Amino acid sequence: MRIGLVGLGKMGANMRTRLRAGGIDVVGYDRNPEVTDVASLEELVASLPEGERFVWVMVPAGAITQGVVDDLAGLLSPGDTVIEGGNSHYLDDGKHAAALAEHGIGYLDVGVSGGVWGLENGYGLMVGGDAALVERALPVFDALRPEGPRDEGFVHAGAVGAGHYAKMVHNGIEYGLMQAYAEGFELLEAKDIVTDVPGTLKAWSRGTVVRSWLLDLLVKALEEDPSLEQISDWVEDSGEGRWTVDEAIDSAVPLPVISAALFARFSSRQGASPAMKAVAALRHQFGGHSVRPSAPGA
Amino acid sequence: MRIGLVGLGKMGANMRTRLRAGGIDVVGYDRNPEVTDVASLEELVASLPEGERFVWVMVPAGAITQGVVDDLAGLLSPGDTVIEGGNSHYLDDGKHAAALAEHGIGYLDVGVSGGVWGLENGYGLMVGGDAALVERALPVFDALRPEGPRDEGFVHAGAVGAGHYAKMVHNGIEYGLMQAYAEGFELLEAKDIVTDVPGTLKAWSRGTVVRSWLLDLLVKALEEDPSLEQISDWVEDSGEGRWTVDEAIDSAVPLPVISAALFARFSSRQGASPAMKAVAALRHQFGGHSVRPSAPGA
Amino acid sequence: MRIGLVGLGKMGANMRTRLRAGGIDVVGYDRNPEVTDVASLEELVASLPEGERFVWVMVPAGAITQGVVDDLAGLLSPGDTVIEGGNSHYLDDGKHAAALAEHGIGYLDVGVSGGVWGLENGYGLMVGGDAALVERALPVFDALRPEGPRDEGFVHAGAVGAGHYAKMVHNGIEYGLMQAYAEGFELLEAKDIVTDVPGTLKAWSRGTVVRSWLLDLLVKALEEDPSLEQISDWVEDSGEGRWTVDEAIDSAVPLPVISAALFARFSSRQGASPAMKAVAALRHQFGGHSVRPSAPGA
Amino acid sequence: MRIGLVGLGKMGANMRTRLRAGGIDVVGYDRNPEVTDVASLEELVASLPEGERFVWVMVPAGAITQGVVDDLAGLLSPGDTVIEGGNSHYLDDGKHAAALAEHGIGYLDVGVSGGVWGLENGYGLMVGGDAALVERALPVFDALRPEGPRDEGFVHAGAVGAGHYAKMVHNGIEYGLMQAYAEGFELLEAKDIVTDVPGTLKAWSRGTVVRSWLLDLLVKALEEDPSLEQISDWVEDSGEGRWTVDEAIDSAVPLPVISAALFARFSSRQGASPAMKAVAALRHQFGGHSVRPSAPGA
Repeated sequence: MRIGLVGLGKMGANMRTRLRAGGIDVVGYDRNPEVTDVASLEELVASLPEGERFVWVMVPAGAITQGVVDDLAGLLSPGDTVIEGGNSHYLDDGKHAAALAEHGIGYLDVGVSGGVWGLENGYGLMVGGDAALVERALPVFDALRPEGPRDEGFVHAGAVGAGHYAKMVHNGIEYGLMQAYAEGFELLEAKDIVTDVPGTLKAWSRGTVVRSWLLDLLVKALEEDPSLEQISDWVEDSGEGRWTVDEAIDSAVPLPVISAALFARFSSRQGASPAMKAVAALRHQFGGHSVRPSAPGA
Repeated sequence: MRIGLVGLGKMGANMRTRLRAGGIDVVGYDRNPEVTDVASLEELVASLPEGERFVWVMVPAGAITQGVVDDLAGLLSPGDTVIEGGNSHYLDDGKHAAALAEHGIGYLDVGVSGGVWGLENGYGLMVGGDAALVERALPVFDALRPEGPRDEGFVHAGAVGAGHYAKMVHNGIEYGLMQAYAEGFELLEAKDIVTDVPGTLKAWSRGTVVRSWLLDLLVKALEEDPSLEQISDWVEDSGEGRWTVDEAIDSAVPLPVISAALFARFSSRQGASPAMKAVAALRHQFGGHSVRPSAPGA
Repeated sequence: MRIGLVGLGKMGANMRTRLRAGGIDVVGYDRNPEVTDVASLEELVASLPEGERFVWVMVPAGAITQGVVDDLAGLLSPGDTVIEGGNSHYLDDGKHAAALAEHGIGYLDVGVSGGVWGLENGYGLMVGGDAALVERALPVFDALRPEGPRDEGFVHAGAVGAGHYAKMVHNGIEYGLMQAYAEGFELLEAKDIVTDVPGTLKAWSRGTVVRSWLLDLLVKALEEDPSLEQISDWVEDSGEGRWTVDEAIDSAVPLPVISAALFARFSSRQGASPAMKAVAALRHQFGGHSVRPSAPGA
Repeated sequence: MRIGLVGLGKMGANMRTRLRAGGIDVVGYDRNPEVTDVASLEELVASLPEGERFVWVMVPAGAITQGVVDDLAGLLSPGDTVIEGGNSHYLDDGKHAAALAEHGIGYLDVGVSGGVWGLENGYGLMVGGDAALVERALPVFDALRPEGPRDEGFVHAGAVGAGHYAKMVHNGIEYGLMQAYAEGFELLEAKDIVTDVPGTLKAWSRGTVVRSWLLDLLVKALEEDPSLEQISDWVEDSGEGRWTVDEAIDSAVPLPVISAALFARFSSRQGASPAMKAVAALRHQFGGHSVRPSAPGA
């Protein structure tokens, strides 16, 4: 099977490698001439069988994805299919699918998990779209997903949008899991009683209730830097955690843990918290409690 | 009516002033010779009518309060009463009451609210202990409490311990209220759309649902320093917020808001958060996300 | 001064009464013939001086407000002004202002706080829009706002949208404040130690740090029903709490307290929590912990 | 090697089986005559080599553990060792160790994770105490822990108390992890878009960032009951989650996620929430918002 792959960044390039290792003939396109297989999107499209094309889009979510989808709407033919595998918002999928459907072009959205480890371990795949299209694309999904039973690394989650919705929830859970381990790590560090913190986390790797791949990664990080001295506490958020909380609010679903994890990241990036300045000011006003003057530049 | 008052710090000295203005004859004792009325606790006790003495203790909670109560147990006579008005844990009250009861000495615990404004506005009082003792001490409470109906600034909340329990809950609520205003303040500051943030808070002073004394204090703080530039975001906690959450956990009461307010204070005092270092390390491990190296000394 | 007022529901009717008591000549329109002053929006417009008209819109946010603004765009003349006082999202204000500006019609957005008590106490007002228009409408605002200094019940918060943004934040704070009192109330009820819970809350009315109008209302509610036996724990949310959290997420502002208050409302309306079913199922799986079978219909 | 094992409940009996399978000669004692190997604690002690005895205590934490330790203090000899493997608070370990040390008896505390699956998979072990004693007891730990490298299922975490402290933190993390998955599950269920929720969770089993043993268990639970219809949302808490939050408060460690998970369990067990009744009452007071009357018996 031959497919096109648009976007050969860190994720896309690894996926090309894994697809090829899995027997899929991949024609990759990227604006970066050092990594691309073809010179243009037009050339990519021309290299695939008309009316049976699959073009996997793996570029940054938002305007760039929109641009590629728009371009493909003009280049592809009825019967072709776009597979959108980026970190897009699930509501964009409905728009993409409708725009492409006007040209007779099919659409699948895929949530892809696995990060830089996916090349080796395979990628967890959550797919939304028409069942017949999913069926036709199965060889591609099978090449990407981890070895083992198909249903342990792949799901046809529902209609268009379901793949990215599932991926969004996956990432929201990820925020909560990471924060739970992080709070536990801090509590182990807080008292002198546990004198081997990295060893304690490592001892949870087998047999315990909290064993997981994220735990394995934290153990690995602590082996490299036992007190995390080399790393700052500044934590970015990618947007999917925000979507998850927005979505929960829209559906009136209480999300105390995932939202707390998100807010902890926001706080981590603040130099001085305006809110806590206000609390300090209030304490000073009513209690005459001493406050610390602001540090220069804080 | 004549009473003894042990502890003439910021709170105690103000209370002596208000009591005297209210017609109570106060004999104050403090280790600080510049503020004390008498040279010793013995002298204070000797200056009061045996068997009818009221000695109000207003010293730091914990070991110092314990020491004064112990001393008074040896100095007072049956029929005398100790009134403990510090920020003590309510479980200490039962111990104090039992120890004094062995000497025939009565005990009342009083939660006192009002901070530095109490001198002028009066102090909110929550009292625990025997009804007959409370009745006898009413003139003292009436002199301390705000003007207006007695039940709007004073309550006999229950048996020994109820006064400090009520004060603990009062302070827990206070944490939540302050954080709610603080979060709102930050959100007003976050966008350019509201160009008069201090004026907006001031406009909430009358007629709105959020009007309160704490709001008035925040307005005052912003009049002095419109962007809170002169104040750091480092916020102490006094212990009563911690007790409140501990107590909730003991009673299986969910306390999401008050606990979040407490944790925000903890976070405000951290140089670098070990938990967020762990999250950053995890993101680096699974996604190859770039991390910021720790700043020197962070 | 004469103005038009569209929408004579609970809020609008009370505002008409207060405006008239304050010397403003109000022509009110409502679809309900029992409360309206005129038969149609056209008639309302015709009754006001062309090019100097002020029409206050006080109808449900969303589609209904949009409809009235659209209608007024067709009926009003250059120089007239629409004042939008409903609970609209601040992003709608920019759209309304732009649409009206095409017809030379001015626009002010006003956040109004005070609920059913506003008739008597006056309404807290937060206004967004052009300074000259605000100046011209001041007599209207002065009639509506509480007595006392103007800046304690009124603010020109910024350009178009600032009024509703400020009101949104006001309501978010309100969620946090209410939840803080509520958690404290539950903690007072949780132990037998405080035997007079309503009296304890009442005693906080004066002198204490937590005194506020919301506290006064809770005291009033407890006087009517000391254990809140007659009321269910089902709590609606109006939408502005959701907007507040969405807005915070958009601005990367941590909002642990206000979001917790919002989530507590979501939880209060759930029959059975799917999340907690999942936790129960997990405990059963790993620990053999007994679970409760679901009640019929739960 | 021969050891004594006191307590043959669900956990203890499974541990006896695994120890025997691992070549350890176990003499078990339980008050239940159907499961015990010996008739009394005296008989158990008599069956072991004096001065070299290891007695593993696996009974409910608190008073029962205390009683067994007290009894063993009277029965054992200098050179013997008590291994306390229950879910005890780490502060009890210091007391037990000191009391036993007066008789020349050694003490190790062990946090044991693995639940009902430990029999098959092995138990994660966190040990506190003297290094020489830990060394001597290694054959026992090796028989209990999972297969694989020793340091992936066992750690000598520190001095006395470190084992139970580590286990407490482990369980706190567990609360957070479970709640994160549960919130995600609810969000998947909340919208119709993902039509195969159990399949989506199963597809996360391999390759994804959120893969873990707890996820595997949730997948298993959903295979048995795809919508969790047979299970109620009432969730018990074992005490260790409470200790974790108490400990964090004592150390001024912010714990938003783990505390939120704990509070969610508290809420799950409330018929009607007093706090939310208070919020409902407040809304009714200020806004005239309709409230639901309390259901009979609620």
